[in-house]
Amino acid sequence: MDKYLSYKQSGVDIDANEQMVQKIWSSVAGTFGPRVIESKGGFAGMFRLDYDEKLFKKNYKHPVLVAGTDGVGSKVQLAAQMKKYDTVGIDLVAMCINDMLVVGAEPLFFLDYIAVNKLEPDMIAELVKGIATGCKQADCALIGGETAEMPDTYTKGDFDMAGFAVGVLERDKIITGQNVRNGDVILGLSSSGLHSNGYSLVRNICFKQQKLKMTDVLDELDGAILGNVLLEPTRIYARPVIKLLHQYKVKQIVHAMAHITGGGLIENIPRVLPKNCNAVIKTQSWPKHKIFSFLQKTGPVEDTEMFRVFNMSIGFVLIVAEDFANSIEKKLSKYGEKVYNIGRITTGTGKVVLK
Amino acid sequence: MDKYLSYKQSGVDIDANEQMVQKIWSSVAGTFGPRVIESKGGFAGMFRLDYDEKLFKKNYKHPVLVAGTDGVGSKVQLAAQMKKYDTVGIDLVAMCINDMLVVGAEPLFFLDYIAVNKLEPDMIAELVKGIATGCKQADCALIGGETAEMPDTYTKGDFDMAGFAVGVLERDKIITGQNVRNGDVILGLSSSGLHSNGYSLVRNICFKQQKLKMTDVLDELDGAILGNVLLEPTRIYARPVIKLLHQYKVKQIVHAMAHITGGGLIENIPRVLPKNCNAVIKTQSWPKHKIFSFLQKTGPVEDTEMFRVFNMSIGFVLIVAEDFANSIEKKLSKYGEKVYNIGRITTGTGKVVLK
Repeated sequence: MDKYLSYKQSGVDIDANEQMVQKIWSSVAGTFGPRVIESKGGFAGMFRLDYDEKLFKKNYKHPVLVAGTDGVGSKVQLAAQMKKYDTVGIDLVAMCINDMLVVGAEPLFFLDYIAVNKLEPDMIAELVKGIATGCKQADCALIGGETAEMPDTYTKGDFDMAGFAVGVLERDKIITGQNVRNGDVILGLSSSGLHSNGYSLVRNICFKQQKLKMTDVLDELDGAILGNVLLEPTRIYARPVIKLLHQYKVKQIVHAMAHITGGGLIENIPRVLPKNCNAVIKTQSWPKHKIFSFLQKTGPVEDTEMFRVFNMSIGFVLIVAEDFANSIEKKLSKYGEKVYNIGRITTGTGKVVLK
Repeated sequence: MDKYLSYKQSGVDIDANEQMVQKIWSSVAGTFGPRVIESKGGFAGMFRLDYDEKLFKKNYKHPVLVAGTDGVGSKVQLAAQMKKYDTVGIDLVAMCINDMLVVGAEPLFFLDYIAVNKLEPDMIAELVKGIATGCKQADCALIGGETAEMPDTYTKGDFDMAGFAVGVLERDKIITGQNVRNGDVILGLSSSGLHSNGYSLVRNICFKQQKLKMTDVLDELDGAILGNVLLEPTRIYARPVIKLLHQYKVKQIVHAMAHITGGGLIENIPRVLPKNCNAVIKTQSWPKHKIFSFLQKTGPVEDTEMFRVFNMSIGFVLIVAEDFANSIEKKLSKYGEKVYNIGRITTGTGKVVLK
C-alpha cells in the first residue's frame, strides 16, 4: 500500500464517477430538444429561450422565468429499502414541475442533485433514468446535474435527491389566483396514489407500528404488493394543463391552480385563494385510492389529519369560471386525466372547508 | 397523549416550518431586484427576463439560459461540527455561479435545497443568511428554496444542501473554448483557500490521522484557528468577470474560462481546451495559501495528487489572447482580484502540463 494519502482512499472515487457519466448520458441526451445546446462535460447546461428556426418556433414577448426546487422527502428511503431506483426520479420531476405549473408556466428544463453514501454507477444510472422519464413526461430537457459522494453524511445504501425546474410564461398570462370569485368551480385531477408527501407518517404506520414488509401482499390493497403501491410515481400534470391553457389564450377562465403536496387540500388551496373566498370541498365527490383508507384504519389517523397530510387522491386542483367548468372537465378528460368536480368557491376568509 | 397518529409524532414539525419561513424572509427579500415578481408562500419563484422600464433596462435578442447545480460536498460536515452555519451558503452560491460563469453567463437567480435531520429554525435562518450573502455578492436573486426535514436520512445535527443557479447570455457571446490557440496566456485568479473541494481528504488528514480539533490554533497556519481556515468561504468571481466581459463587447479576446473545482487545474482546464492544445502551467508562478503546504506535509500527499484534488490557490482561470493579457490582468486587479500569469497555451493533445 502506498504511504501517500490519495483522494480515493479518503472515500471519493473519481473513476466510478467517469463510469457513471458514461452510463447516464444516453438517458440524459434522450430528453434534449432542439433548444438544448449540448455541452457534455461542460460546466453548465445551456438552453435557447427563443428559437427562430421554422420547426419548433418559439418566441416570447415579455418572458417571465419560473423556477422551483423540491425533493421527494422520505420516499427516497423506501426506494433505497426496496433497491428500486428507477421511479423516484419521476417523483422528483413531478414535485418541481407541478409546482411551477400552478402559475401556468410551460416547463423548459430540469437539473438534478443526487447525493449518496457511495457512488454506484448502476444505481445512479437508474435514478437518472427515472428523472429522464419524468422529464420526457413533462416535455422538459434534463440539462444538468450533480452527483455527490458523501460517505459520512449519508448512511450506507442511503441517498437523497433534489430537483430544479425552470419554465417560462408571458407576463400577462401569470395565473395568480386574484380572479378567483364566489361561484367558481373547483376541479380535482386524480393522483396516482400517495405521490411524494406524508411518507414519514406512512413509514411510521406501516413499518414502525405494524412491522409490515415492503414485499407484503395486502388484501386491503386488492392483493397489491405494499412496496409497489408506496413507490407508485407522482403524476405529472404539465402536458394536459399546458394544453388546456393553450386552448384559452384570450380569456382567463382558469382562475387559480394548486399542486396538492404536504398539507393536502387544506393547506395548499389557500396558497392561491383570495382572502375573501373560501373553498368548500365535498369530500365524498371523488373515489379514493385504497391506500388512504388502509392507512387511516391502520394508524388510526383522524379524518382531518388525513386531509392535512395526504392528497387523498386529488393531486392537482383547478379553480375555474363556472360557465366553463363542464367544457374544461371534458377537455382534461380527453387529455387522459380523471377529473372530478370537487367543490365550489364561496365568500369567506381564505380557508378550505371540508364538507 | 393522543391515540391518533399525527404527522408531528412521525417526525415532521409543520409549526417549526412556519417559524423558519418568518425568520428567513428578510434575508431572502434582501436579494430581490426589480425583476423579481414577489410571491411569498407561492409555489414557484418568478423572474422577469426582459425589463423595459428605464432604470435597470434589460433586453435580450437571442437569450440563452445557462443553468448549473452543485453542492458543497463534505464542507457541510465541518460547518455542522463547528455549528457555524452562516458561511457555507456562500460556498453553495459560489460553486454554482462560478460554474455558470465559465461560458460568460450573467447570473439571474438562485434556488436552494436544504435537508436536515431536524428543522431548527435558527440554524436554517443562518444557512439561508449565508446563501443570501452569496447571492448579493453574485448579483443574483434568491427566488426559491426548499427545506426538507428527513429524520432518518440524515444523522442528528447533520445536513446537506444543493444549489441551483440560472443565468443568461446572448447566443453569439457564448465562450466555448474553441478559439483557444497556441500562444494564449493563462491568467489565474486567486482563491480564498480550499473553496469547496477536497474536504474528504482534508478531514482524513486533519481529523482521522492527526486527531486535530476544529478549534486548534496552528503555527503552520500563522496562528490561525484550523476551523476558520477550513470554513473560509469560496470566492465568487461573477462581478469582476462579467464586468471584464462587458468591456470587450465586440472582440472575443477571452477565449476560455474554467472554474477550478474537484480535479484541480489538471482536470478542469481540459474541459474547455481544444484537443490540439495543451495548457502549460508554471506551478511556481503564484503564491500558495499555507493550508496547502500544511496538508501536503501532514498527509503526506504527492505533488500531482495535490494539484488533482485542490485548487492550489487558483480558483478561476481565464485563457486570453496574448496581446490583451496585460490589459486584462490590470483590469481584473483594479476590480479587486489577485491575478497571476500562470502559464501558456501550446500545441498539444488537450492536456495540462505542470512545470
